[in-house]
Amino acid sequence: MKKLKRSGRLVDMTYFLLQNPNQLISLTYFAERYQSAKSSISEDLTIVKSIFESEKMGYLTTVPGASGGVRYEPAVPLEEGERLVQSLCERLEDASRLLPGGYLYLMDILGQPRFMNEIGRLFAGIYRSREVDGVMTVATKGIPLAYAIGNHLDVPVSIVRKDHRVTEGSVVSINYASGSSNRIQTMSIGRRSISEGANMLIVDDFMKGGGTAQGMAELLKEVKANLVGIAVLVEAATDERVIDDYISLVRLEEVNEKTKQIKAVPGNYSKHLKF
Amino acid sequence: MKKLKRSGRLVDMTYFLLQNPNQLISLTYFAERYQSAKSSISEDLTIVKSIFESEKMGYLTTVPGASGGVRYEPAVPLEEGERLVQSLCERLEDASRLLPGGYLYLMDILGQPRFMNEIGRLFAGIYRSREVDGVMTVATKGIPLAYAIGNHLDVPVSIVRKDHRVTEGSVVSINYASGSSNRIQTMSIGRRSISEGANMLIVDDFMKGGGTAQGMAELLKEVKANLVGIAVLVEAATDERVIDDYISLVRLEEVNEKTKQIKAVPGNYSKHLKF
Repeated sequence: MKKLKRSGRLVDMTYFLLQNPNQLISLTYFAERYQSAKSSISEDLTIVKSIFESEKMGYLTTVPGASGGVRYEPAVPLEEGERLVQSLCERLEDASRLLPGGYLYLMDILGQPRFMNEIGRLFAGIYRSREVDGVMTVATKGIPLAYAIGNHLDVPVSIVRKDHRVTEGSVVSINYASGSSNRIQTMSIGRRSISEGANMLIVDDFMKGGGTAQGMAELLKEVKANLVGIAVLVEAATDERVIDDYISLVRLEEVNEKTKQIKAVPGNYSKHLKF
Repeated sequence: MKKLKRSGRLVDMTYFLLQNPNQLISLTYFAERYQSAKSSISEDLTIVKSIFESEKMGYLTTVPGASGGVRYEPAVPLEEGERLVQSLCERLEDASRLLPGGYLYLMDILGQPRFMNEIGRLFAGIYRSREVDGVMTVATKGIPLAYAIGNHLDVPVSIVRKDHRVTEGSVVSINYASGSSNRIQTMSIGRRSISEGANMLIVDDFMKGGGTAQGMAELLKEVKANLVGIAVLVEAATDERVIDDYISLVRLEEVNEKTKQIKAVPGNYSKHLKF
């Protein structure tokens, strides 16, 4: 890379940090990249850090010492998070989402990569201190959110399937009781896709009884991985929930097919959101 | 936002442009955001543009005039694209991927959000001139790449399913012949998920005969949308392909179960890649 002035370094450094979240970048790396003295790089990083912090783009942590450097951790500030959740609630209350059986059409929301990306950044900020090694979700609708979170945390995604497809190789399967229908179902995961001892974050787009999330938690036990959290986009109000340690963005208080009323309120996430 | 010096503006501007790809941001917006004169903003953008271009982070297009502004379009430069494809080829040639029936295990690659993100940026650069309105893929394995491309192009993703799930609302279905098994199968898409007349990019993680991609193309006709391209991550060598207008990153020349040989070479993408 050719030698750059400070203004050029600041643009490139910002780009570089955003492209490499959750990775420790050494001062030496930047010094060589820009053919500049470490003291200049330190000053650059002070400027970058002050803007990242005042504009609340996430955390920029400096690790001192010879093996030290700088790490960018994506997050969404409280205020922006509240705005995001509020817009989600409003969109969910649109009566045209109602499908037979009290289900809600969500694909227009889940189908927006940029919006999912923002939601993923919000969750990444919430779970940043839990040392997540991987994200796990169930096909199909959980995948967009799982990838958005995995992208910001820079960890792999494991996909649980309710069907069994040949291209997964050897699989681990369990039976679980689906909360909504109370039927016994099967879910499987490719044995290669989760390492023993990994700290896994479960992601669910829509949780009612919690049977699916509980099933995923049992799969984790089966492959000797650790459950460090359950991230839920939308939870339905219910009295019969089999799990309670989860973080939700939105809670559906009411879905009334007769009166076409949907009431969505913020979930329990705000207790876990700080900047 | 509080008034910033040039150094601060450059950091924030870079962040802002990266977070809002493919959107025209007016000079007025930046002038108000930073409480600065438009002439200063113009100078800032000249600096940002020169770094984006010399470091090949993508295109920064300036639109002149009163309604003008600046637009960032993500792309991957030729050289970096070649490196990305080369690393993909090497990973694919690992014999431990071989599954019964000549299939390859791909979930470790598809399961890496950051890697998928880079591949998505490569495809977004390739298709930037085709005015893509939306991305379409088939569940499950196509989803990660489809979202990565959709994210960089800032367009929604529509997911085709081979099962029929109740939460999609009204669906459009077609029958198609799967190339590999020659069986007649069904695929469906939620009627709400694609607009009439939309320019759609089809995404497929693995293409053999092309039956799945052709099925998706027929679904597009069914909902009166336009096919503007077919992006394929890995194509298998075959003499019986039903489609030919696609862009692939990697081509499997040989998958030999007996000798455990896999040979992967770059696909036809490079003809379409320029910077």
